[in-house]
Amino acid sequence: MKKQTRQVRAGDLLIGGGAPVSIQTMWKKPLPAVAVSDVLLCLGELRAAGCDLVRFAVPDCDSADILGEIARNSPLVISADIHFDYRLALRCLEFPIPKIRINPGNIGEEWKVRDVVAKARDVGACLRIGVNAGSLPRNLRAESNQALALVRAAESEMEILDRLDFRSVVFSLKSSDWETTVAANVAFAERYDFPLHIGVTEAGPLIPGIVKNSLGITSLLDKGIGDTIRVSLSATALDEVRTGIEILNALHLRTNGVRMISCPQCGRATFDVQKFLEDASYLATQEIKRVTVAVMGCVVNGPGEARHADIGITGAGDHVMIFRLGEVIREVAAIDAVSAFREEFEKACARQP
Amino acid sequence: MKKQTRQVRAGDLLIGGGAPVSIQTMWKKPLPAVAVSDVLLCLGELRAAGCDLVRFAVPDCDSADILGEIARNSPLVISADIHFDYRLALRCLEFPIPKIRINPGNIGEEWKVRDVVAKARDVGACLRIGVNAGSLPRNLRAESNQALALVRAAESEMEILDRLDFRSVVFSLKSSDWETTVAANVAFAERYDFPLHIGVTEAGPLIPGIVKNSLGITSLLDKGIGDTIRVSLSATALDEVRTGIEILNALHLRTNGVRMISCPQCGRATFDVQKFLEDASYLATQEIKRVTVAVMGCVVNGPGEARHADIGITGAGDHVMIFRLGEVIREVAAIDAVSAFREEFEKACARQP
Repeated sequence: MKKQTRQVRAGDLLIGGGAPVSIQTMWKKPLPAVAVSDVLLCLGELRAAGCDLVRFAVPDCDSADILGEIARNSPLVISADIHFDYRLALRCLEFPIPKIRINPGNIGEEWKVRDVVAKARDVGACLRIGVNAGSLPRNLRAESNQALALVRAAESEMEILDRLDFRSVVFSLKSSDWETTVAANVAFAERYDFPLHIGVTEAGPLIPGIVKNSLGITSLLDKGIGDTIRVSLSATALDEVRTGIEILNALHLRTNGVRMISCPQCGRATFDVQKFLEDASYLATQEIKRVTVAVMGCVVNGPGEARHADIGITGAGDHVMIFRLGEVIREVAAIDAVSAFREEFEKACARQP
Repeated sequence: MKKQTRQVRAGDLLIGGGAPVSIQTMWKKPLPAVAVSDVLLCLGELRAAGCDLVRFAVPDCDSADILGEIARNSPLVISADIHFDYRLALRCLEFPIPKIRINPGNIGEEWKVRDVVAKARDVGACLRIGVNAGSLPRNLRAESNQALALVRAAESEMEILDRLDFRSVVFSLKSSDWETTVAANVAFAERYDFPLHIGVTEAGPLIPGIVKNSLGITSLLDKGIGDTIRVSLSATALDEVRTGIEILNALHLRTNGVRMISCPQCGRATFDVQKFLEDASYLATQEIKRVTVAVMGCVVNGPGEARHADIGITGAGDHVMIFRLGEVIREVAAIDAVSAFREEFEKACARQP
């Protein structure tokens, strides 16, 4: 059962209060390093991949100004990530950037937070209070219970926000340990109804990162906790978004895009599944209703899995067979597999109600 | 609590009955397509990565003979995957290959299974009865409860084995749907004490595959179910093994090798974390006791995470800092990061008790 949280708005995006769980990622390069037009192109790709919000580090005033320009033309919601210098938050709020993340561990004195809140209220922006185990406030670093330390850090910031009667706030409590992350968020969600941004931070490269985020994020979503997710990987932003999508797919929280069944390939395969999938990047589209696709190397499980799929392809000797709902609809030479399957996939999408 | 299963032996490898959860993968190419010496090299790499057993598809007699040669010189345990033709199982048992997988959906009449069992008993080999939702016996294909159909298929094979009083058997019940896989294995484990090989089959390419296998496999291991795991990915065998390792790491079921903390990198990073990790493949070794490594892009969380790590590296302007248990032990130019860190990593490993 989804835990009811209050709802917060970041530009067009609703977070919490029954809104769909949104997916976010973070921009990986310094803002001055990439032309604004190229950033906007990438944001378009991230949006097509299912991303709802992209956060940018803003370490200086130049970066803030570039981000202002990006936000004016962005196809998705932008958030600014601020550490150390509250004045950068104020600058970002002028454009305005609709969501500002600050870190209680390094934003400094209460009056600085007060200034940021006043400005956010003025322009209708929301804040994220992002607590990280790697950058806890000094007084909490000795606490041996890391989950408790994360909650305490969030609470000390919450007290300030309460005094200012500011409620447009998302919280996050993250550790690189997935179990600590789960424990901290469960404890927070038992006490407070602020929406939660969840994810396992510094989770490592692709493989360990996907494993730890899958476990951490699904454990929480399964308990009804989590309003927006960010998979943190030492990999591309697109990889983070795709992992987020697959996590939501696995829990039936998203019902658009392809559900992919594909075989690991063995010595029996007469059809190069991996190669076929590499050539089929169009299958990543999120702009269709759910279609189940099966890509199989041989006839052992091929027809069987294809029986359960809206559209499937199986190697069969020097040919491939294309299936629709268990019926063979086409047999073509392996060399024509890519183009023939794409045609049939597009027909299958067009048939979706 | 680990569910107690009976123990089965495949060559040197113990499965079930309190043995550590083992990791397996499958060879992806036709056996005649790669020189035996090259196969053996790859098996060595898979073993170093933490793999315990590799299964090979044996679709014909030539493949069986090549596999016999591989098995004689293999650095890890070999299993043969047989569909349709029981005579190939008999051939493999002659070498002997110490573990044979047969599929109840296509192995055929009872007397064929009886012949295979007699030979396996003779040579001290074990069997895996591998049931797949994509290749169920004909009489079970209409069953709408897929988990139940998987259990029924396993049971009908089990009756034959019971009559023959043959108990050196591992079972697997797999679907491309992770929840069906979990339900089938839970139902099986409630009734029987045969060891279980678990994994989500045909789970797709890297990202969806890791997500679905993480959820399916950890759900079961968390319930004490599962004696050997195979992550099925439309990706490399090494990727499958590494994912398996990370799943066991996440559940504290393996305690060797590196636990990796690394930042996703943002515009604040002064150190290219992804590039550094690509150059640091030596960190994948499983032949050390547990070392926690933190690779961080900047000073926001860097020193904090490094504090919890046995050995860590953080970008800091044009330099990097190397940490040991929270103490800066070295500062070097970014260009020397790779070699300096490797030295310190090797020292950290040498210090492990």
